[in-house]
Amino acid sequence: MPAAIEFYFDFSSPYGYLAAQEVEGIGRRLGREIVWKPFLLGAVFKTTGAAPLLEIPLKGDYARRDMDRSARRIGVPFQIPQPFPFSAVPAARAFYWLAERDTIAAKDLAMSLYHAAFGQGHDISTPDAVAKTAAMHGHDPGEVRAALDDPAVKQRLKDEVQAAQTKGVFGSPFLRVDGEPFWGHDRLADAEAWAETGGW
Amino acid sequence: MPAAIEFYFDFSSPYGYLAAQEVEGIGRRLGREIVWKPFLLGAVFKTTGAAPLLEIPLKGDYARRDMDRSARRIGVPFQIPQPFPFSAVPAARAFYWLAERDTIAAKDLAMSLYHAAFGQGHDISTPDAVAKTAAMHGHDPGEVRAALDDPAVKQRLKDEVQAAQTKGVFGSPFLRVDGEPFWGHDRLADAEAWAETGGW
Repeated sequence: MPAAIEFYFDFSSPYGYLAAQEVEGIGRRLGREIVWKPFLLGAVFKTTGAAPLLEIPLKGDYARRDMDRSARRIGVPFQIPQPFPFSAVPAARAFYWLAERDTIAAKDLAMSLYHAAFGQGHDISTPDAVAKTAAMHGHDPGEVRAALDDPAVKQRLKDEVQAAQTKGVFGSPFLRVDGEPFWGHDRLADAEAWAETGGW
Repeated sequence: MPAAIEFYFDFSSPYGYLAAQEVEGIGRRLGREIVWKPFLLGAVFKTTGAAPLLEIPLKGDYARRDMDRSARRIGVPFQIPQPFPFSAVPAARAFYWLAERDTIAAKDLAMSLYHAAFGQGHDISTPDAVAKTAAMHGHDPGEVRAALDDPAVKQRLKDEVQAAQTKGVFGSPFLRVDGEPFWGHDRLADAEAWAETGGW
């Protein structure tokens, strides 16, 4: 069985949300597992000196338009939640907590969190909001709240952020296909073609 | 006849070089003229706070790899010339000087300048280098040299840079299709689809 494709994303990344709608389809077409790896862009931005995309003059206006357009093209609802940018720490911790036991359930939770934020415009930056979304999937909200403060869960996210950076991940979404990096929602097709053909 | 598609690029932009190989093909398929509009990214970077791509930690390494890969995919030679980044002022001035009289000849010169820089790794940042390339197309080198110092030509480039920025152009390559902006070599296919379908 071919190696899994790594899908790096930040829960506060609009283009990450768009990519999340498509990566499992790519995995199915290729017959390859997609491993979801939420991380925190803020930590990487300290290294790259990047600013939050929507706050950049000219580029921010363009990005907003491109996000709307890209969402329309793949037929998913899209809006920028308020506040924005927001902290993705609780969402990412909840993901890894759940992924330790059930990776499918963790992906389902991730999709719901993304949908709440960028599909419906809700604030998912708080532990309460994350616990509420998790409860919709049958997870005990008290247990989720406790997990978000669990030192082991906190450390897991720190380790994942560090590992992502070590692998050169600096943006969201970011795919790694057999070690080959692909950055951006607009490179998903290239990533799939690379996996199909073995590269060029 | 449908409106022309505007193709903005910087002569020192590797992705602009790649896009230059493809835009005329897009124009032919669509039956639409492509108007080439060299500008200067440096002026825009002062507004957006962007740094030269290849100098950014992590992102620079990725970009270098992505450029190589993208060039291989479309089957064109590619290298980063030294020095890099370089001044695109003489090349852009020569382009507009020639375009006033012959837009086809100006595109041919642009392709040759790009090829010298990113296909062969030559330095095209000096008036001499630009005049030499222009001479290969039958233009008098002395006339080209004089044009590069012509106040009217200098002003034309300044006006074009200002006009690009006013239209929200902040990167290279950048296409405008019926007013709709598309930034990046990886958005060429979207720009073509937009022109074909009238948008979505």
